[in-house]
Amino acid sequence: MAEATPIRPISADHIADWAYEADVVVAGFGVAGASAAVGAAQNGADVLVLERTGGWGGAAAMAGGFIYMGGGTPLQKACGFEDTVDSMKAFMKAALGPGTDEAKIDAYCEGSVDHYHWLVDECGVPFKLSFWGEPGWEPPGDDGLQYTGGENAAPFNATIPPAPRGHVPQMEDKHVSTEKGGGYMLMKPLVDTAKALNVRAEYDMRVQTLIVDADGRVVGLLAKQYGKDVAVRARKGVVLATGSFAYNNEMLESFAPKMVNRPAASIEEHDGRAIRMAQALGADLAHMDAAEVAFFCDPQLFIRGILVNGRGQRYINEDTYPGRVGQATLYENHNEAYLIIDEAAYEEGMTRPTSSPQLRHQPKWVAETVEELEAEMGLPAGALQATVDVFNRHAENGEDPLFGKKTEWVKPIGSPVAAIDLRGMTGGFTLGGLRTNTDSEVLHVSGEPIPGLFAAGRCTSGVCAGGYASGTSLGDGSFFGRRAGISAAKA
Amino acid sequence: MAEATPIRPISADHIADWAYEADVVVAGFGVAGASAAVGAAQNGADVLVLERTGGWGGAAAMAGGFIYMGGGTPLQKACGFEDTVDSMKAFMKAALGPGTDEAKIDAYCEGSVDHYHWLVDECGVPFKLSFWGEPGWEPPGDDGLQYTGGENAAPFNATIPPAPRGHVPQMEDKHVSTEKGGGYMLMKPLVDTAKALNVRAEYDMRVQTLIVDADGRVVGLLAKQYGKDVAVRARKGVVLATGSFAYNNEMLESFAPKMVNRPAASIEEHDGRAIRMAQALGADLAHMDAAEVAFFCDPQLFIRGILVNGRGQRYINEDTYPGRVGQATLYENHNEAYLIIDEAAYEEGMTRPTSSPQLRHQPKWVAETVEELEAEMGLPAGALQATVDVFNRHAENGEDPLFGKKTEWVKPIGSPVAAIDLRGMTGGFTLGGLRTNTDSEVLHVSGEPIPGLFAAGRCTSGVCAGGYASGTSLGDGSFFGRRAGISAAKA
Repeated sequence: MAEATPIRPISADHIADWAYEADVVVAGFGVAGASAAVGAAQNGADVLVLERTGGWGGAAAMAGGFIYMGGGTPLQKACGFEDTVDSMKAFMKAALGPGTDEAKIDAYCEGSVDHYHWLVDECGVPFKLSFWGEPGWEPPGDDGLQYTGGENAAPFNATIPPAPRGHVPQMEDKHVSTEKGGGYMLMKPLVDTAKALNVRAEYDMRVQTLIVDADGRVVGLLAKQYGKDVAVRARKGVVLATGSFAYNNEMLESFAPKMVNRPAASIEEHDGRAIRMAQALGADLAHMDAAEVAFFCDPQLFIRGILVNGRGQRYINEDTYPGRVGQATLYENHNEAYLIIDEAAYEEGMTRPTSSPQLRHQPKWVAETVEELEAEMGLPAGALQATVDVFNRHAENGEDPLFGKKTEWVKPIGSPVAAIDLRGMTGGFTLGGLRTNTDSEVLHVSGEPIPGLFAAGRCTSGVCAGGYASGTSLGDGSFFGRRAGISAAKA
Repeated sequence: MAEATPIRPISADHIADWAYEADVVVAGFGVAGASAAVGAAQNGADVLVLERTGGWGGAAAMAGGFIYMGGGTPLQKACGFEDTVDSMKAFMKAALGPGTDEAKIDAYCEGSVDHYHWLVDECGVPFKLSFWGEPGWEPPGDDGLQYTGGENAAPFNATIPPAPRGHVPQMEDKHVSTEKGGGYMLMKPLVDTAKALNVRAEYDMRVQTLIVDADGRVVGLLAKQYGKDVAVRARKGVVLATGSFAYNNEMLESFAPKMVNRPAASIEEHDGRAIRMAQALGADLAHMDAAEVAFFCDPQLFIRGILVNGRGQRYINEDTYPGRVGQATLYENHNEAYLIIDEAAYEEGMTRPTSSPQLRHQPKWVAETVEELEAEMGLPAGALQATVDVFNRHAENGEDPLFGKKTEWVKPIGSPVAAIDLRGMTGGFTLGGLRTNTDSEVLHVSGEPIPGLFAAGRCTSGVCAGGYASGTSLGDGSFFGRRAGISAAKA
């Protein structure tokens, strides 16, 4: 890959003019960058944020807005849910692995209530103290709390006390306009807080290369602004917060090939450049194959039927977090899924409130019997019948011994019956990236921090190693973003 | 991770004494290292091999010995098989992905017949011109050719003309002793050839750190010999050939967590150190999550029954390459498998020749009916019955429409019927590593080669990105190892 500007670190000796200078220089004005800027400024640093686009927000401002928090936040308590730090740790280690960074999850959970207070009390992020309990990707209104990781579903609910941990900032005029989601209402207060702390920002700044001194310490970076190379000096530290590599096809081919051509990270700036810049300094990586995988179907529909793979076999409890469905579909079932649902269940689902009307697909095949349906679908004779027979046999008793779907969602499939074609209906963004410690220092492959270099958000490997829960990206982006800013300010 | 000797590259200016010196210095005396040594020496270089253990061989000498070659080798022709470079390319790209390095596979396939001649004519590797056609991991005798990737099974056989490409060197006295396998008969001639070319070797040499000159060119490496640091100068180039990271738990946790605690790479020296040394220079990585996954059951047994997962569902055609079964079990079915087989089929399988008598497991549950069997196994009522009913319904016609198992292996399951417990019966080694080009130069994250640094074998990402076929590791290790030696000699 030819680079207009070399990606290898350059020596500070070669810099004649520093176009900008600050104590802490933050690359990226999404959730991790804004949190780093606030964290650094609150600790006395003079902060400059470099943003590639023309405005702040990043992918975060266009996201649903969940922040994964728990252990007994005021919002959880106001809604009557008990939660503990231990339950939160146990769930995250079980659901977000294998291979989770235990120290990172421990720090994240132990600091979660404090993080809530920082967001609300210090940054002004608004949460409505109400819970949304219907199936769905997001609350359709402005409720502040929802289950977002399958905590209350099998297999986790059998051993770990469940609590909802998806905290979504209160959207303004949600019933009037859906243009601004919860992510905007996270970013706006964070950016306002940063500005009030005199954080400066420069736009159209494409970071290219790290600048190091003779001892190997990062002392700035080279960026392109309006097409021109500019050097930016960081007296204390550089924070990388430029997002995932979901739109870098070469990196996807090398590290997460199942995600090629299915990015859904909102903004195409997620090109992995910061990961490459730090790798060139010997920075270590982690979990480069991991990805968040959305499943493009309304949970109000699929929770009321059964999901089957290309062989007509069930493969998951349909009442779990829909992102787990997406991962199971893409990684374990060749990206092939069909929703088998009877007419009554479909009609019921279509009348329920949803934030995903665009994911309410029409049936592709309809029949009076499952035998006819499987023939229309081109499945081998008996395959889907066998699946439905076994499901119905136990559903008569309200049970799902194969996958543990909760009784309230278990109903025999009747007639007429339909199949919705959900093959290939997945997309998402990468979760792997730079390896950092709990102070958000970027780690060299030696295991030691690289002096002067910090990172957070989706250019790092965060609390997710393989699994995912909605809110963990804005969650660890804001949590470890703040820590990156604090660490850099104190460097 | 604290390191006794730092992993960061050190400057040649700091080296007072060079303990050893050669044109080309090769780290590791397994298949990739030996091939590099021969390739370099054949091109006029003075070569020194540094081996960590007390003798040559590496994992290769203890392996079954398959080398994946095709496109019309003399052995393929002698056994009556037609093969083309195009078929070989098509199969490898389909079966070893997603995300295969197309340029690497193209070079590998186009050079495969030449590689055969190099091994046989120049290095003296012996192949018996005979084919073994029974199911199994390896030929039980000294036959030279076998299917080793599922080329003749679904889904590949429907679109790509199949040919066997697993070439195994002729074992000596196999009927007398099974101590030396085909891998030994690959390594012995390669090492003899290297010695005849005056390649030198030093043992108990643990490579620690790369040594670079002022321009960033690799000019040697630091090793520990008998516990003492020694500097080794490479006038032309260093070749890294130290194997996988299957025994480095920290790297597995970060990159391939499903492989934690299941290494099966034969030798514990596979610690990933060379990958780390090169990463510290900004070397790029690829496919760090990929792994070869062996399935610890004799194919002579499981091809005669059906494999089901923890829910009693079939998940693969049992007549494919057993390594594909291993990958599907570990990655797509939570590492849970049972073999369902009737008495007649079990007895038949037990009488067939095998190289894997240690993988002939006893049934754990036996019953007169599938209904009883599933109850004994603790599976939900009806789950296994549904699977067997659908399988038998089509097996009556010699068909397997769900997975495309070949007619010759499709027989209805009768009574009495047994289940063999194969949960957790997987293990293997990692396939990801340094990113190299077709000249075996190690690539920097910028995409440019790192001057003076070459690599091959399982410390690199080779022809396999996700899938695997037996023989591709000794195959790309020898093929790109030879190229590494040639490139270094000409550097």
